[in-house]
Amino acid sequence: MSKHNGSATLHDRRRKMKAALFARPVRPANLDGDPSVADLVEQMAGMSLQARNIGLCAEVLGRMLKDPDRPTIILGLAGPLIAAGLRRVIRDLIVHNVVDVVVSTGGILYQDTYQARGYRHYQGTPEADDIALRELRVNRIYDTYVDEDKFWETDLWCGKLADRLKPGPHSSRDYLDTLGGELEDEDSILYQCHRLGVPVFAPAINDSSIGIGLTEHHHRAVKRGRAPLMIDSIRDNYELTQIVAKSKKTAGIYIAGGVPKNWINDSIVMSYIFGREMGHSYAIQVTTAVTQDGGLSGSTLSEARSWGKVKSDADFAMAWVEPSVSLPLLAGYVLGRKLAEERSRLRFSWKGERLVSLEDAPEVRSAR
Amino acid sequence: MSKHNGSATLHDRRRKMKAALFARPVRPANLDGDPSVADLVEQMAGMSLQARNIGLCAEVLGRMLKDPDRPTIILGLAGPLIAAGLRRVIRDLIVHNVVDVVVSTGGILYQDTYQARGYRHYQGTPEADDIALRELRVNRIYDTYVDEDKFWETDLWCGKLADRLKPGPHSSRDYLDTLGGELEDEDSILYQCHRLGVPVFAPAINDSSIGIGLTEHHHRAVKRGRAPLMIDSIRDNYELTQIVAKSKKTAGIYIAGGVPKNWINDSIVMSYIFGREMGHSYAIQVTTAVTQDGGLSGSTLSEARSWGKVKSDADFAMAWVEPSVSLPLLAGYVLGRKLAEERSRLRFSWKGERLVSLEDAPEVRSAR
Amino acid sequence: MSKHNGSATLHDRRRKMKAALFARPVRPANLDGDPSVADLVEQMAGMSLQARNIGLCAEVLGRMLKDPDRPTIILGLAGPLIAAGLRRVIRDLIVHNVVDVVVSTGGILYQDTYQARGYRHYQGTPEADDIALRELRVNRIYDTYVDEDKFWETDLWCGKLADRLKPGPHSSRDYLDTLGGELEDEDSILYQCHRLGVPVFAPAINDSSIGIGLTEHHHRAVKRGRAPLMIDSIRDNYELTQIVAKSKKTAGIYIAGGVPKNWINDSIVMSYIFGREMGHSYAIQVTTAVTQDGGLSGSTLSEARSWGKVKSDADFAMAWVEPSVSLPLLAGYVLGRKLAEERSRLRFSWKGERLVSLEDAPEVRSAR
Amino acid sequence: MSKHNGSATLHDRRRKMKAALFARPVRPANLDGDPSVADLVEQMAGMSLQARNIGLCAEVLGRMLKDPDRPTIILGLAGPLIAAGLRRVIRDLIVHNVVDVVVSTGGILYQDTYQARGYRHYQGTPEADDIALRELRVNRIYDTYVDEDKFWETDLWCGKLADRLKPGPHSSRDYLDTLGGELEDEDSILYQCHRLGVPVFAPAINDSSIGIGLTEHHHRAVKRGRAPLMIDSIRDNYELTQIVAKSKKTAGIYIAGGVPKNWINDSIVMSYIFGREMGHSYAIQVTTAVTQDGGLSGSTLSEARSWGKVKSDADFAMAWVEPSVSLPLLAGYVLGRKLAEERSRLRFSWKGERLVSLEDAPEVRSAR
Repeated sequence: MSKHNGSATLHDRRRKMKAALFARPVRPANLDGDPSVADLVEQMAGMSLQARNIGLCAEVLGRMLKDPDRPTIILGLAGPLIAAGLRRVIRDLIVHNVVDVVVSTGGILYQDTYQARGYRHYQGTPEADDIALRELRVNRIYDTYVDEDKFWETDLWCGKLADRLKPGPHSSRDYLDTLGGELEDEDSILYQCHRLGVPVFAPAINDSSIGIGLTEHHHRAVKRGRAPLMIDSIRDNYELTQIVAKSKKTAGIYIAGGVPKNWINDSIVMSYIFGREMGHSYAIQVTTAVTQDGGLSGSTLSEARSWGKVKSDADFAMAWVEPSVSLPLLAGYVLGRKLAEERSRLRFSWKGERLVSLEDAPEVRSAR
Repeated sequence: MSKHNGSATLHDRRRKMKAALFARPVRPANLDGDPSVADLVEQMAGMSLQARNIGLCAEVLGRMLKDPDRPTIILGLAGPLIAAGLRRVIRDLIVHNVVDVVVSTGGILYQDTYQARGYRHYQGTPEADDIALRELRVNRIYDTYVDEDKFWETDLWCGKLADRLKPGPHSSRDYLDTLGGELEDEDSILYQCHRLGVPVFAPAINDSSIGIGLTEHHHRAVKRGRAPLMIDSIRDNYELTQIVAKSKKTAGIYIAGGVPKNWINDSIVMSYIFGREMGHSYAIQVTTAVTQDGGLSGSTLSEARSWGKVKSDADFAMAWVEPSVSLPLLAGYVLGRKLAEERSRLRFSWKGERLVSLEDAPEVRSAR
Repeated sequence: MSKHNGSATLHDRRRKMKAALFARPVRPANLDGDPSVADLVEQMAGMSLQARNIGLCAEVLGRMLKDPDRPTIILGLAGPLIAAGLRRVIRDLIVHNVVDVVVSTGGILYQDTYQARGYRHYQGTPEADDIALRELRVNRIYDTYVDEDKFWETDLWCGKLADRLKPGPHSSRDYLDTLGGELEDEDSILYQCHRLGVPVFAPAINDSSIGIGLTEHHHRAVKRGRAPLMIDSIRDNYELTQIVAKSKKTAGIYIAGGVPKNWINDSIVMSYIFGREMGHSYAIQVTTAVTQDGGLSGSTLSEARSWGKVKSDADFAMAWVEPSVSLPLLAGYVLGRKLAEERSRLRFSWKGERLVSLEDAPEVRSAR
Repeated sequence: MSKHNGSATLHDRRRKMKAALFARPVRPANLDGDPSVADLVEQMAGMSLQARNIGLCAEVLGRMLKDPDRPTIILGLAGPLIAAGLRRVIRDLIVHNVVDVVVSTGGILYQDTYQARGYRHYQGTPEADDIALRELRVNRIYDTYVDEDKFWETDLWCGKLADRLKPGPHSSRDYLDTLGGELEDEDSILYQCHRLGVPVFAPAINDSSIGIGLTEHHHRAVKRGRAPLMIDSIRDNYELTQIVAKSKKTAGIYIAGGVPKNWINDSIVMSYIFGREMGHSYAIQVTTAVTQDGGLSGSTLSEARSWGKVKSDADFAMAWVEPSVSLPLLAGYVLGRKLAEERSRLRFSWKGERLVSLEDAPEVRSAR
């Protein structure tokens, strides 16, 4: 081959490589015509930076919801999401069958309970005088206030509920299912999960005001020489792992990070105990956690692949946008486009801590 | 007064203080009915965290646009906003008369020029192999790619333009106005600013590819023993300060931070040179810059009050949400609600570096 | 009073207020003479930004260690601290009697165990090819690698240990104390805590590889129809709360954030169950968590005052510096200045889950 | 080859790949014996996360200072570094010949001037009442206070200096050199640069209080019909590019980010104007800027390679640690280890804006 041809080939190859890199131009956002939230999110996929990441998360959501293998979708919730004003949005994701399992901090579920009992979060300011708030028994969550007296009352109520339940080991799911059954509030996450049979786990439920109530119950039981209700946290592992092991595929939706993210990912790894080698087929995360501290909240979903938590060929995306902004965008897309409408609901049959069966129940569609 | 009464009074006062703190409950987002972007942003004001901050920014925008004193609204732009896909959004804010003056990094205006000349940004990935990109002369901006050959060509073009202009001192505004006049692209920021008489400043224009072009021009001039076109950066100060000093009120919209934010704020302080003591009446910022490093990009607008850059009684808000996400939300709100529709356009009469007059031109409405 | 005098007074008052604000000039760092870490940290208190915050944290540490009321100091650990290379530093804080109680994520204690069993973390890179790592069973933690095969083996070992223990409810402290007793490694955190009687809690121990081992144990027990070892997470609450309630004062040292921070703070609140109304007298935190997402990791210690978790008049400081950098600085200060040398060690007498007594044991000094 | 052998080979290859990944164990920090700052920084290179990044930055610094090709080292400064208490540290880097050229925000150099004139920064708090500060004419920079009256006076002084200088175009370097000559303060950055012939650029000097003073001068000149002193910002480009083009190699040290970082990098690119194709051989950055917004402050040095700003085979590192903490660590390492002691000083011969020669002056050693 002549030198000339060689260069031509090289030049040609470079041209092709460049053309491949330049395959998809950035598409500027266009706000003409007062677009819907779903429209804007769709546009975001053609933008760059975190807008594109939001758009990519939306696309991954679309594919996980339409996958004929019907992955079991596990929603991980952390951060002050009820304070943020996301209670209704999360509740809608459950009611409209976007997610199959919920894993949450205890705090979120506690604050759902507090609201279900008629109490509210109030718009405050991060510049508040915390000493003055303390004197008034007003507790601050960044820019919202809650009523300590009503918190107190709700703590006690959670503990009293335990007094009525069977002593001995429970999973958080078991306890939370009972708790959800006591709430009568259509807007409640726990109520809807109970009603629809969606399992809710709080793997660190002791680290919440529900935990405070249960500690009071525990103390009462000890004093009276009775066996307390226990939250056997390993039972939580056992239960979620069974769900994973009985699923064809799994998908994770991570809001913020924290224990829920890591624990869901661990359950994927733990499926080996039941002879499966799982790995999420789909995963998205929206978070403010930085990557540079090496913590699990901000660790990339790519990193999770090195552990096998997320499959090597998984479909995933991650956006660094605070959840009070990013979750309404993503939920607005999914609900606006009715992406979960055709999706069947899973039916979980529990016998104590054993998941007897996990069935696809096509007849049970999302309702309300 | 009896002790009993004293307590009652105390109790009463506490109750009132608590009621004041609990005046506004958090209102959860509700995505029923496929809401528009403007609807969601309106809802956000009743949520918490950064969603509320976005909502508050939107409300401040609403009030600044409706203020009968017609503040001069100065838009500060930093960050890779063209790469991000925000070119059209920014252009629309100008065309629809939401802003009166633009202050930008040179990079943004350069990339606007690059696009106006027919070149594109491409969707890439932050995980790219930068050494391979280098070999292909593909430059990366986080997750977008640009074509170095076309950058090169555009740099030269900017320098050649200077060859044709009068040597000696210019402000960046003066040069950019000429540059905008050379572009024929309805979607261009610089073109529209030129067409509509909206002043555009790049106070650090030397720090951009436009600056590279002008340096080439400078070198050419030196070699040929000719006087070069100069960008007298103090002239920029002089010009913006006159605009501020001739305004009844001012308002700042800060996208990201950087030199544009600080420089606009400094022009407010500099108004003392013309015998005014200004201070923004309105200010909003959306940024990812952290506050804890003490830098000006992330410094709070409250801090700016200690300097008099923002008035003590100003109406302001700040959201920590990356601009590719936050700017479409805010612009979607303003445009969707047509908040600037009744707003007159300012007419700037320049005589060299002197602002002869700054008039409200009610007949010139936003168009297109 | 004449007008003149009034102005004079006003002028005088302003002068005084200004003088008060200007009482302490910033003292520039001076690196002459190759200063020690302790010297630099001491200097930092006179600087600004996060350097000052590090300096203030150091000063708070100094006061908490010298307080004659001998607060019970609780160390909260989160983030990949063993991977970071902080194992020895943390171990030294325990051995040198700087802290009295340790609350940790399960992950940190697991990785301490993995190292105690002879395995290592390796220097890697965040840009690694995660798919290639997966194939080699190399797991990535940001920029470090671990050996999945040795992880696996360590998981199993943790589960096997449970096979030998009494079935039924345990606290994480109880289990971890046993685990620590099995390790023979002077550099191990768990080993030293066991040796010195320092209680270690992992309130979300299920969310870790120890939890994976215990789940395997659980599954084995279920299959064989035997009662498993349970981790009753409410028992953890009960135990830590007793420690708090039996303390004269408490102090919190928070590395990163996560469940340990929040759970320690909750234990303070829970002391009401035992008739105490506690609140940390001292608290410091070093973290990378942002404040603007409202999450508990990044929530300010001031905010914690509104909850009564930190006392209204507490001595506290917080630095936004990643722990691999900030913890060696703070530990270098405390150890370099020998601040804990005179401090007595606490003696905890447990009877099952009951803390029979918590005594100050002056004769037991910190030792190696 | 038999199947068996094939597997053996595969197994062998995997073992080797794994061994390569596991070549360097993480080395835990050890604080025994009250280590010096330099000792700790050296240890950090064997740790992980940002500690390792600090350690790697230190190692890169060591290599750039010992390179026999003697790279021209350009220091980029942004952020409130004087307020932070870093004035002396920066001055020492100049005096001890660690850096050859300084590129800074105007603000840093202004605050150096303010201090050289006898005024101070004061320790304040980010929670200050900004409205009260405004009334007292106390300006806040995060957690420090400055005296507005003394700022004002210093602004005027900067403008008056311009009155005495030759009208017409100057570079910022030219003006700043004169300014440095007026200051009599051994601790001043500008004074030492003037004394030692170290060029200092402020490419956006108009965006600072020096710029305010020059604007006042400009206004005065305009009113009196006289030509003002101009800062031709393109001249800055021309000057720095000559330095780059006359250097064998270059190295960048970026504190924070902002215009200095980008502008230094652009000067590397601009060297093509003088027929060179440069690219930093060494680069380090310490910053708090996030990467995910795509901005230039937080853009990785790897990304800079795609532009050719940093060479493909360059030696670089980057740490996400706030400069008030990271700069004393790095400077403590360089000064403590006396790494620049043998280094010659560069001698710059300027004829107006032309760099006539750039010579290595071995006889001029770093001195105080």
